Amino acid sequence: MLEAQLDDMTGEGLGYTMERLLSAGALDVFYTPVYMKKNRPGTLVTVLASIESADRCEEILLVETTTLGVRRSHWSRKILERKFVFADTPYGKIKVKQAFMENRMLHQAPEYEDVARAAREHKVPFQEIFQSAMK
Amino acid sequence: MLEAQLDDMTGEGLGYTMERLLSAGALDVFYTPVYMKKNRPGTLVTVLASIESADRCEEILLVETTTLGVRRSHWSRKILERKFVFADTPYGKIKVKQAFMENRMLHQAPEYEDVARAAREHKVPFQEIFQSAMK
Amino acid sequence: MLEAQLDDMTGEGLGYTMERLLSAGALDVFYTPVYMKKNRPGTLVTVLASIESADRCEEILLVETTTLGVRRSHWSRKILERKFVFADTPYGKIKVKQAFMENRMLHQAPEYEDVARAAREHKVPFQEIFQSAMK
Amino acid sequence: MLEAQLDDMTGEGLGYTMERLLSAGALDVFYTPVYMKKNRPGTLVTVLASIESADRCEEILLVETTTLGVRRSHWSRKILERKFVFADTPYGKIKVKQAFMENRMLHQAPEYEDVARAAREHKVPFQEIFQSAMK
Amino acid sequence: MLEAQLDDMTGEGLGYTMERLLSAGALDVFYTPVYMKKNRPGTLVTVLASIESADRCEEILLVETTTLGVRRSHWSRKILERKFVFADTPYGKIKVKQAFMENRMLHQAPEYEDVARAAREHKVPFQEIFQSAMK
Amino acid sequence: MLEAQLDDMTGEGLGYTMERLLSAGALDVFYTPVYMKKNRPGTLVTVLASIESADRCEEILLVETTTLGVRRSHWSRKILERKFVFADTPYGKIKVKQAFMENRMLHQAPEYEDVARAAREHKVPFQEIFQSAMK
Ligand code: NI
Ligand code: NI
Ligand code: NI
Ligand code: NI
Ligand code: NI
Ligand code: NI
Ligand code: NI
Ligand code: NI
Ligand code: NI
Ligand code: NI
Ligand code: NI
Ligand code: NI
Repeated sequence: MLEAQLDDMTGEGLGYTMERLLSAGALDVFYTPVYMKKNRPGTLVTVLASIESADRCEEILLVETTTLGVRRSHWSRKILERKFVFADTPYGKIKVKQAFMENRMLHQAPEYEDVARAAREHKVPFQEIFQSAMK
Repeated sequence: MLEAQLDDMTGEGLGYTMERLLSAGALDVFYTPVYMKKNRPGTLVTVLASIESADRCEEILLVETTTLGVRRSHWSRKILERKFVFADTPYGKIKVKQAFMENRMLHQAPEYEDVARAAREHKVPFQEIFQSAMK
Repeated sequence: MLEAQLDDMTGEGLGYTMERLLSAGALDVFYTPVYMKKNRPGTLVTVLASIESADRCEEILLVETTTLGVRRSHWSRKILERKFVFADTPYGKIKVKQAFMENRMLHQAPEYEDVARAAREHKVPFQEIFQSAMK
Repeated sequence: MLEAQLDDMTGEGLGYTMERLLSAGALDVFYTPVYMKKNRPGTLVTVLASIESADRCEEILLVETTTLGVRRSHWSRKILERKFVFADTPYGKIKVKQAFMENRMLHQAPEYEDVARAAREHKVPFQEIFQSAMK
Repeated sequence: MLEAQLDDMTGEGLGYTMERLLSAGALDVFYTPVYMKKNRPGTLVTVLASIESADRCEEILLVETTTLGVRRSHWSRKILERKFVFADTPYGKIKVKQAFMENRMLHQAPEYEDVARAAREHKVPFQEIFQSAMK
Repeated sequence: MLEAQLDDMTGEGLGYTMERLLSAGALDVFYTPVYMKKNRPGTLVTVLASIESADRCEEILLVETTTLGVRRSHWSRKILERKFVFADTPYGKIKVKQAFMENRMLHQAPEYEDVARAAREHKVPFQEIFQSAMK
């Protein structure tokens, strides 16, 4: 996990940085609003990265943001196995991600991109497609 | 400390999850609003748990939320000793928690449940009972 | 809509205030974290209230919080009609709220209290009961 | 201005809703993290819309989100005049937006899409292109 | 009340703007973190101002920030009467603000600047001085 | 890194605590708004401190806040080298901080205090001075 807090970046610059981190192989990127000294609204940038992509992400943070340093720490991680199935819906086939722990399915959810595309195409609410793929 | 960030849970589901984590022995649970990719408001779930209850809390996160993984890291912790005394107030006895470091009392505060119950019962503002138990 | 921003209340006191506002008939209450002067994390309290309960809510804000004033403004509101049906699930009957605009059902959702109670009773994840009531 | 607060939507659904509101002509859309009853992290949706597009945006909120009602209020608005010029940079021409009040230029900024495209194309940091278009 | 949301300002610039608005006579200024389009963390600026100082504050927003427009709306306001007394404490006299509604004292609190100065001078925790001025 | 989450402190008390931590040698301090149990808006305090000042900062947290414990963890940190130069501007000399990685300058920014002082003195917008020092 990489972290840096910033009080001298714009939202525009941070939007661009997130895009670059995700294309460089970050597992996930998220921004937390924080309160910094001298009445400054700031942003904490958190990057989850595998050991292979951590150096690349660290360099992007140093180059694209105004930070003078990047912190790093190691977290262990318990990951569920995932499987993909396809749901037949009135709006076409929708990919569904299922999460398993030792052969027990814990939860499942339709993939966002499939649901959003079907919603746009069929002019039907997102929730309606999402629900019809859960049945 | 356990962590997972989520972009596909509702507030309702997270309220239920907090309740379950606290009954399973979590020391504390808090939610941080975070900004995730594709314009998604998300939530970072943080659970503080002793070594004994960490596995149980991890399982609740995997079962009750939509996460595909839970991170874990170890933090050392400096804990103050605590003692309880009772304050006599015009609204009855109120339990007060005192925090000590090597016999020096650092701070004290009336217990929330006692103050809230007396406030409801005597139809007096919360702050008034809180203050009268501090004297 | 009533509003007040506060930099000298504790989270405990705000939790109590929300409880009192909801019992006094507020339609909804929510708290927004805001950045105030002199590096102070503060809280903006927003209360949605009908004309009948606005005065009562305003008085609770003045008595229970440390504010010196409460703002008020009027918003017009478009409300959907709602109907309740019951879903038969393997975990018992679950109340479902349906929202209508001119006889067209826009969306529906199982009631939180019913889902939570069945989840606790049957020791089944919240999401599983929620989904089974949507079918 | 339209508003609705939600505790039973996912981040994914809100990301989709923002996209639809912007294509329907909303002037701006933003999400504020709020604290709702029963320990629920929620989201306040705010839509700025002209009188012509307000009804269309209201309908999207009612159809795509789980809200049972949408509030509306009127704000007056002081708008700066804007003019566009082009900056010649080592990375090509970049469009720059200038804001004027009665012929006095108050501020200017390079357009995000132009800066981001040049940054991707020339593999140069976003800030470097931004600065070179400000000179 | 004046409002503007911004995605292209830094925290540093917003800290400076708050300082200028408060010296120009704003009653209060606060910043709310908001989620804007294209994954941008943004900031909603809210300024409470009397009718006399609203134009001056609006101009500061237009000149010091990157906004292209400022919204304005009118809220009615219920204000408590306030009185000041002095508390004798082991750390000297501390000014205490009392809030009244029709001769009923609703709440009171020691003034921040007095408490902070005594805490610095006597090297005693802020809370201890605050409490001793409440007795 | 030191952390503690709080639900029974006021914003005023937290503003004072930040001031004390920074004078005690903390590298940085920031506050994150978090959602805690029983509908309480809370605050996560994060302190970045060198090994030498960590104990002093921990004691300030225990004495000035209401926390019963402080967590600590170790992060490794990649720091850029920094150099200072002076920019000649129509508003006087402004100090500019430059960040280097192995002799490659990654970014630079005028120092806040210099820009703010010149802006106040010359009654010119902050951004204008900031930009003129970047050229
Ligand atoms: Ni800085
Ligand atoms: Ni380790
Ligand atoms: Ni997802
Ligand atoms: Ni009693
Ligand atoms: Ni105050
Ligand atoms: Ni049953
Ligand atoms: Ni609900
Ligand atoms: Ni080019
Ligand atoms: Ni912009
Ligand atoms: Ni003294
Ligand atoms: Ni507590
Ligand atoms: Ni000068």
